[in-house]
Amino acid sequence: MKRPHVVIIGCGFGGLEAARALRDAAVDITLIDRTNHHLFQPLLYQVATAGLSAPSIAAPARFLFRKQRNVTTLLGDVVDIDVAARAVQLENGERIAYDQLIVASGATHSYFGNDPWAAHAPGLKTLEDAFEIRRRVLLAFEHAERETDTVAREPWLTFAVIGAGPTGVEMAGTMAEIARHTLPEEFRRIDSRKARILLVEGGERVLQAFPLRLSERAKDQLTSLGVEVLTSHKVTEIDSDGIRVNVNGVEQMIACKTIVWAAGVAASPLGRLLARACALPAGSIDRAGRIAVEPDLTLAGHPEISVVGDLATALSYEKNGETKPVPGVSPAAKQMGRIAAKNILARIAGRTTQPFRYTDYGSLATIGRKSAVVDVPVPLFGHLRFSGYFAWLFWLFVHVYFLIGFRNRFIVLMDWAWSYMTFNRTARVVAGTEKFEPATASQKAKP
Amino acid sequence: MKRPHVVIIGCGFGGLEAARALRDAAVDITLIDRTNHHLFQPLLYQVATAGLSAPSIAAPARFLFRKQRNVTTLLGDVVDIDVAARAVQLENGERIAYDQLIVASGATHSYFGNDPWAAHAPGLKTLEDAFEIRRRVLLAFEHAERETDTVAREPWLTFAVIGAGPTGVEMAGTMAEIARHTLPEEFRRIDSRKARILLVEGGERVLQAFPLRLSERAKDQLTSLGVEVLTSHKVTEIDSDGIRVNVNGVEQMIACKTIVWAAGVAASPLGRLLARACALPAGSIDRAGRIAVEPDLTLAGHPEISVVGDLATALSYEKNGETKPVPGVSPAAKQMGRIAAKNILARIAGRTTQPFRYTDYGSLATIGRKSAVVDVPVPLFGHLRFSGYFAWLFWLFVHVYFLIGFRNRFIVLMDWAWSYMTFNRTARVVAGTEKFEPATASQKAKP
Repeated sequence: MKRPHVVIIGCGFGGLEAARALRDAAVDITLIDRTNHHLFQPLLYQVATAGLSAPSIAAPARFLFRKQRNVTTLLGDVVDIDVAARAVQLENGERIAYDQLIVASGATHSYFGNDPWAAHAPGLKTLEDAFEIRRRVLLAFEHAERETDTVAREPWLTFAVIGAGPTGVEMAGTMAEIARHTLPEEFRRIDSRKARILLVEGGERVLQAFPLRLSERAKDQLTSLGVEVLTSHKVTEIDSDGIRVNVNGVEQMIACKTIVWAAGVAASPLGRLLARACALPAGSIDRAGRIAVEPDLTLAGHPEISVVGDLATALSYEKNGETKPVPGVSPAAKQMGRIAAKNILARIAGRTTQPFRYTDYGSLATIGRKSAVVDVPVPLFGHLRFSGYFAWLFWLFVHVYFLIGFRNRFIVLMDWAWSYMTFNRTARVVAGTEKFEPATASQKAKP
Repeated sequence: MKRPHVVIIGCGFGGLEAARALRDAAVDITLIDRTNHHLFQPLLYQVATAGLSAPSIAAPARFLFRKQRNVTTLLGDVVDIDVAARAVQLENGERIAYDQLIVASGATHSYFGNDPWAAHAPGLKTLEDAFEIRRRVLLAFEHAERETDTVAREPWLTFAVIGAGPTGVEMAGTMAEIARHTLPEEFRRIDSRKARILLVEGGERVLQAFPLRLSERAKDQLTSLGVEVLTSHKVTEIDSDGIRVNVNGVEQMIACKTIVWAAGVAASPLGRLLARACALPAGSIDRAGRIAVEPDLTLAGHPEISVVGDLATALSYEKNGETKPVPGVSPAAKQMGRIAAKNILARIAGRTTQPFRYTDYGSLATIGRKSAVVDVPVPLFGHLRFSGYFAWLFWLFVHVYFLIGFRNRFIVLMDWAWSYMTFNRTARVVAGTEKFEPATASQKAKP
C-alpha cells in the first residue's frame, strides 16, 4: 500500500516541528522551503548587529533531517496550490501531489502599503535582511569617518529603529552597545559614542505586549544604554534623507541615513491564495493576510490542508481571564506544528482530530548587555515578572537551549562569552566593495 | 613639525605588515582598502567549501589597528595616483596627499583574455568570490535533487576545478570530501558520492611549484579522495554547458554546471597606472600586470613610492643554486611590507635603504582531510619534504598560528575539531532565495 504523502511548505518553527512529529509515522514527507536552512529567528538581530555569524543561528534543513529517512527536503518556491487536484506547484512548473498538506510559510515584514519605504528601511526576517542591515550599519560608520564635513556627517551617525516591539528593542539596544563600547577605539576622525540611536514608536510605550511595569523598566534600561526612546512618534514618511514623524499632530523631520524597520508583519501570500482556492468567506483573511483556521488547524471544508504558525489566525486563548489572540512567537508555531502532525495521523487512522490549545510559556525580550525583561506564567502563582541581569541570564539560557543542534549552541555560547568579556563583535565583515547608497539601494541584500 | 604622512593602499598581508612595522614611528599612516577587512587568503577555500564562516578568516582592518593610534583606516577605492602632486584619488574624487606611498593592492584572478568565462567559472580571491562558489556548489546538489531526469541531472553532479596549483588542489580535495562524507545521508533522490570532481590542469602535473615526488604524492592522495585528476588537459572554452578541453590535440567536451577557476592571477590595475604615471620603460610591466621595482622595492626615479606583495615583480632569490622569482605567497608579501616600512624610516632619517632579500620558509599545500604536502628548506640540511597525515598536522598548525587575532584562531580550531570528528561542515547556509542560473549569473557575488 502506498504510504500517505505529506507535503510541508516552509521550514520555520512550525514546519520543522510538524516534520519532526511525524518522525515515526508511516508517511512520506516532502519538506519544501525557499531557502536551504532553518533559521533561528529569535537571534537574527544578533546577525544583523554582527554578534553572531549566520551558521550559528541557521542550519541546513536537510542536515537537520539527515537521519529521518521519511523526509525529502527540496529547495523550491511554491507559487500555486491546486486544491482540487491536491498538488503544489513550484517556480519551475514542477507539480508535487499531496495527500495531506501543511502550510507553514510564515510572515514577512509589512510597510502598511508604503512599499517604497522598503528601500530605505529594511526589515529583519531573513538572513539576507540581516546581512543588509549589518552592511548598512557598519558602512554608515565608515561613511562618517570618510566625511570631512561635520554637518554632512551627522545623518551618517544617526540610526533610527522603527517599532518598539521585541525586535526593535533588541536592535536599538545592541546598536547603542556597538556605538558606545565596540567601536570607539577604532575610529580616528569620529567619536562613535556620539552616534544617536533612536527607537521610534507610534504607540505610547515600548514592548506593548508586556505589562506596563516591564515596559517602563525596558525604557529605563534602553535610556541608560544611550538609546533615545521616542514613543508616540508616528512615522509618516521615509526617504533617503531620513524619516518624517508626527508627534501630537506636529510633523518633524529626522535626518538619518540608516533606518531599520521593525514595525509590522504581513503573512505569506499563500494565505490569500488558499482562501481563494478553498472559496473561504471574505472575512477569512485578516488585515495582515493571515488565514482563519478551524479549531484543529485545518481549513474549512478541506481537512487535508492544515495551516500553522504566523500564517494562521482566528485562534485565541485565555490569559488572566481575558481572551487573547495567540501571539506570533516560535513556541506557538511549534505547538501548532505538533498538533497539525498529530491530527494528520488521527485522520489517517480514522480517529477524530483534537483542537489546538495554546500553552503560554511567557514572554522574554532582551535589551542589551545584561538587561532583559521576563514575564512567565507560573501555575497556581500568577506571573513571575522580573528584569535586569537575572532576566538577561534567563533569556540567554532559554535562547541557547532552544537553538537547533549542539554545535551551534556551543559556538554561540563561546561567541557570547567572548563578546561579553571584550565588547568585541566578531562578525563585522562586509563582503564586497560596493558603496553604501541608501537612496538607490535595492531591496535585495548584498551581504 | 608636521609628521610625514604614509599612505598604504591595500590591507592584505603586505599592507598590513607595513603598517604594523611603522607602529612606533613618528609618522601618520592612512590605510586605504576597498573592503572593511583583512582577509586570511590561505584559508579562503574553507569559506568557499562551507568549512569556516567568513569572520573566522577575516577581521575588520580598523579593529586590527584599534590600538595603533598613528593609523587611520579608510574604506575607499583608489582610482588614480597623482605622482607629480603626491596624492591618491578615491572613487568619490577625494584626494589624499602623501609623503610616502606603499602600494600593496595585490592581484585578482585572470582569465587570460577570456573574460566571458568569468560568469561561468568564478575565481577565488575575495570573500564575495568564496560566497559565490559556496552558493554554486551547494545549490548544484539541490538542483540535482530536484531534477527528476537522470540525464539532465549529470551535469549538476559534475564539478570542475580548473588549475592544479595549491588553491585548485585544496578546492578539489575538499569538494570530494563534501560529496563523499558530508552530504550522503542528506539526500534522498541522488547519491552525492557519485558526484564527479574533476581537477583540470593544462600542465603535466599537479602542484608544479613542488618537487616531482611531492606532486606525485599529491596526485595519489587526490585520487584516493575521489578526485579525477586530468593533467595535460588544456581548457579552450567555458560556457553554461561546461568546459571544452584539448588533450594532446583532441578536443573534448565535459558537461558540468559548476566550475571553479583557480588557474591564473593578474595584478591590480594600479600597476599599469603607476608605470604610466612614473614614465617607466615599456618592459616594466610583465604579462600578469606586475610592476618592476628597484632592489629596495621603490619605483625607479620615485623613492617615495614602494610597491610590495603580488603587485611587485623583477625580484628573485637563490634556491638550490638556481635563480627563481619570488613566489606570490603571503610570507613574501609580509617580508616586503616590513622592508618597505624600514626603508621609509631610513629615508626619513637620511640613511641608505636596504635591498629586499626573500627568505624562503618553504611551501605547503593541503589536499583534504588528513593529507598535505610540505617542502621546507632546512639550513645546512637541504630540504625537509613529507606528505600525508603529519604534513597535514604541520599545515594545520602553521595556518592556525598565522591567523590574525586570538579569537579567530580558537574558533577555527574548534570548528575544525568538530568537522574532523563529524565530517559536518557548518557554514552551509546560503542566504537568499534566488535560483542558481549559471548561464545568466553575473560576476557579482550573491552569497
